[in-house]
Amino acid sequence: MIKGTNASPGVAIGKALLLKEEQVEIFKSNNITVKEEIEKLNESVNKSKLELNKIKEKVANEIGEEESQIFESHLMVLEDPELLSTTINKIENEKVNADYALNEVANNFITIFESMDNEYMKERAADIRDVTGRMLKHILGIKSVDLSFLDGEYIIVSDDLTPSQTAVMDKKSVTGFLTNIGGRTSHSAIMARTLEIPAVVGLKNITDTVKDGDLIVFNGDTGEVVINPDNETYEMFKNMKEQFEQEKEELKKMVGVPTKTIDNRHVELAGNIGTPNDVEGVLKNDGEGVGLYRTEFLYMDRSNFPNEEEQFIAYKSVLEGMNGRPVVIRTLDIGGDKELDYLKLPKEMNPFLGYRAIRLCLDRVDIFKSQLRALLRASIYGKLRIMFPMISSLEELLRSKEILEECRQELINEGIETDNNIEIGMMIEVPSAALISDILAKHVDFFSIGTNDLIQYTTAVDRMNEKIHNLYNMFNPAVLRLIKLVIDNAHKEGKWVGMCGEAAGDDKMIPILLGFGLDEFSMSAISILKARKQINSLSFEKMKEFSDKILTIGSAAEIEEEINNILK
Amino acid sequence: MIKGTNASPGVAIGKALLLKEEQVEIFKSNNITVKEEIEKLNESVNKSKLELNKIKEKVANEIGEEESQIFESHLMVLEDPELLSTTINKIENEKVNADYALNEVANNFITIFESMDNEYMKERAADIRDVTGRMLKHILGIKSVDLSFLDGEYIIVSDDLTPSQTAVMDKKSVTGFLTNIGGRTSHSAIMARTLEIPAVVGLKNITDTVKDGDLIVFNGDTGEVVINPDNETYEMFKNMKEQFEQEKEELKKMVGVPTKTIDNRHVELAGNIGTPNDVEGVLKNDGEGVGLYRTEFLYMDRSNFPNEEEQFIAYKSVLEGMNGRPVVIRTLDIGGDKELDYLKLPKEMNPFLGYRAIRLCLDRVDIFKSQLRALLRASIYGKLRIMFPMISSLEELLRSKEILEECRQELINEGIETDNNIEIGMMIEVPSAALISDILAKHVDFFSIGTNDLIQYTTAVDRMNEKIHNLYNMFNPAVLRLIKLVIDNAHKEGKWVGMCGEAAGDDKMIPILLGFGLDEFSMSAISILKARKQINSLSFEKMKEFSDKILTIGSAAEIEEEINNILK
Repeated sequence: MIKGTNASPGVAIGKALLLKEEQVEIFKSNNITVKEEIEKLNESVNKSKLELNKIKEKVANEIGEEESQIFESHLMVLEDPELLSTTINKIENEKVNADYALNEVANNFITIFESMDNEYMKERAADIRDVTGRMLKHILGIKSVDLSFLDGEYIIVSDDLTPSQTAVMDKKSVTGFLTNIGGRTSHSAIMARTLEIPAVVGLKNITDTVKDGDLIVFNGDTGEVVINPDNETYEMFKNMKEQFEQEKEELKKMVGVPTKTIDNRHVELAGNIGTPNDVEGVLKNDGEGVGLYRTEFLYMDRSNFPNEEEQFIAYKSVLEGMNGRPVVIRTLDIGGDKELDYLKLPKEMNPFLGYRAIRLCLDRVDIFKSQLRALLRASIYGKLRIMFPMISSLEELLRSKEILEECRQELINEGIETDNNIEIGMMIEVPSAALISDILAKHVDFFSIGTNDLIQYTTAVDRMNEKIHNLYNMFNPAVLRLIKLVIDNAHKEGKWVGMCGEAAGDDKMIPILLGFGLDEFSMSAISILKARKQINSLSFEKMKEFSDKILTIGSAAEIEEEINNILK
Repeated sequence: MIKGTNASPGVAIGKALLLKEEQVEIFKSNNITVKEEIEKLNESVNKSKLELNKIKEKVANEIGEEESQIFESHLMVLEDPELLSTTINKIENEKVNADYALNEVANNFITIFESMDNEYMKERAADIRDVTGRMLKHILGIKSVDLSFLDGEYIIVSDDLTPSQTAVMDKKSVTGFLTNIGGRTSHSAIMARTLEIPAVVGLKNITDTVKDGDLIVFNGDTGEVVINPDNETYEMFKNMKEQFEQEKEELKKMVGVPTKTIDNRHVELAGNIGTPNDVEGVLKNDGEGVGLYRTEFLYMDRSNFPNEEEQFIAYKSVLEGMNGRPVVIRTLDIGGDKELDYLKLPKEMNPFLGYRAIRLCLDRVDIFKSQLRALLRASIYGKLRIMFPMISSLEELLRSKEILEECRQELINEGIETDNNIEIGMMIEVPSAALISDILAKHVDFFSIGTNDLIQYTTAVDRMNEKIHNLYNMFNPAVLRLIKLVIDNAHKEGKWVGMCGEAAGDDKMIPILLGFGLDEFSMSAISILKARKQINSLSFEKMKEFSDKILTIGSAAEIEEEINNILK
């Protein structure tokens, strides 16, 4: 039995699907038959066409027409006569292998297109790179696992999972994730919870231990993983799985029930989402709103920034999908551990303490404005709340609001309607923001506390760093004091406070946060009903007393012990 | 005129001495004359011997016998008959060039010695690497600038300066530093202030702009640099230099004067040091103590950890040198941007948020104990205060004190005397420590606030990151509130608070810190007399009022403006 970090709850049983990095290496060879090479080339075109058509259809059905257009562009590259004929000429004239010829020709095209000062041409270069990469794998016989079409019940075993992998993933066939790296707040973990797929992360070398096709059972609540279990163990996990699913069924009774404590304190339970598709999970779990829409996924896995129109469509879709329930949309939070290929950022020594999120947006106002305009345009389709990430000073907040106002004026001048009652808020995730929250509260409608980063900066602990993992703790007394300070400061100004970090959905943190007076809890959709059940069983007055006591304790371990005691 | 970051005050005039990275590349050649190659080899031995003898003598005189022993070991390698005869054999038998032969033979020896599980042998491997590196440069005719013997007045121009470069540097001939990278808190900058050498850093590409031998004038107070100035400019800088030196002369009148405000509030003005040699500067500038002895320099530029005895000698020397005045010695603060070659630490994504300082010491108790034993043994030679860096939780503080107590018990059992009145303190540089300082204050005798890191973590801004430099500001209102909180919490428990970060010596910060009630200000020795002159002109009561007002302001720029107004 192996133990990792429990990242997404539930029990999974399935066959291992091992994802390893594939390396495409191309060598020149003159020891070839021209005819055979041309055949290989043509075959790669046909296979790629088949794949792309399938993917395009899948994305169009499951995600949207708009999003599927990229694959239409890829298909057009495949049909470009110039790319193919130049490659065939090269094979014939130089008597070289197909992969070498294709690679040379493609690189030529890419270089030419990239050098043009024209966004359209640059996107074409990226398309050619994608498509010829796919063709080369076919020519070289490199099988890449196609996650979008799986048959059976699989547990994906990999070093880590990228947003692009999870985006195309066939959710019906994937019953769990196991990864070498990451913690509870890594993207794979967040994604697993969003998709309601059990996951264990931080398993260090699971990709070496597991063979493709091994039977795996694991428990996403405890982090326990067993490879090729004996009958007894298998049965045990099967029972646990059934029990987990029963409990899940039981929790469905909480749908439609208002969230309030036994002494009638109402709080808002919302869901965190990454894409418009995730709205479905929030509604299914009766989320009272979206407390965090991470817009960065819109920007990832592309060759250039999404334009205003694309963004508008996504935001509108979420607002409409939530049907009048409030939606907090966070402006672009890129940088740190989240990179964009097309945004060439300098390599930083400490990216978590670097040029990211609002710092980048206030520096690159063009990017920021395109998002703000899209948000304002979408605002009339629902109840929009705009939130700025990584604000660390009053100046940044005021400047962000100023740019938002500029965008609104522009739209008004263009005759475009916007909602006049959009709530404007900011994340509290940098200690300096928490410490001047009395002043900041005068300039916002709400705060949302991002515990993952707040813990990280307050304690100077990189949450991804295994060597100091023991120091990263959500019960850290200093962090709890900051949270209480922020809530008190906001309430003094009559503003509300939410939390969209990991802690908001944690059953040990919920009693304290409730006692502190937190107004909104935003979490993975999967946790909403469980949180409601818990909150509806607690007394606000008692939790107030309890949390006041917690604030006098100096050790995280002691605080956790106190909580365990009252949860008994 | 070029402008960089003012890093160390004063005006410098001198010839540029350009330091560029030298790359030693070795190729095999059979197109050689055996006799010539053997001559080259012998010549490299002779030249290296000369150099090493000179360096050894210099270090023995200026630093200490103990420290010069490393060069004795290097000389022994040069006299090792096996290394030379094996190399000569290789030249003769394989008819290869001397550098190739020496490199091969040396690598063989190094591999063998390094593979032995024996610390002594591993050190020999490092010695061989150093010495053969020196020989190879002579064989290949690569001139490396020898900073320890300079003739004339030089301004060193380089990408950055390492502690090893500044350690052997001929201080009489170096009149200034100019570097491409770094900010006011980089090592080059701190070192320049310690050595009282003017410096401008962060000049980006000064090593490309300046040619070796160019005449340079610059002002370390304003960051202005002029290369090959015209007569008028030259005269202007010469006058400024004279004026600066006059003022320095004037400040000498503050020697022996007690530090107290016009309404009789006494504060302690201490110096920050990096090596026992720096004690001289603190005494010359009438420092009332050492507020920060950075012990990590003892660990740098070596092939292994200093043993307890070496450390004892260094600590004793500082305590005796300060002659009864208090000395705060900070335990090992390694990691982050400070690496040790012989301590193989994993590469971290965010080293500033990583495995460093006390985190490393509590994990590697062997390293920690050897330092604590040395400190305890030295304690009877003066007034020692021990300080733990990077404490972020109560647990870390208690565990550190526990290990210290273990060491004391060991020494008592061994019959070794220690001082029973050592004050035990900790740095406040992580926000979490500041936020629970009420609790921590019960367990220490003093706090010392490290503003450089405290600003960095509180605002989530890497102070070395040029892209977000504008966000790193010592007038940050959140940081000021934390400082005030720490001082109040400590005073409630009857404990004193010092500051050893950049801000303590800043003439704009001093009035606020004084008003907050800071008890000890520790700074570069060069700033002490100027700070005394300023403090002795201020009213404590007025500064209290002023600093209370500052705490209500939410913008760093506005705070700085307020300060500028009262400084007028």
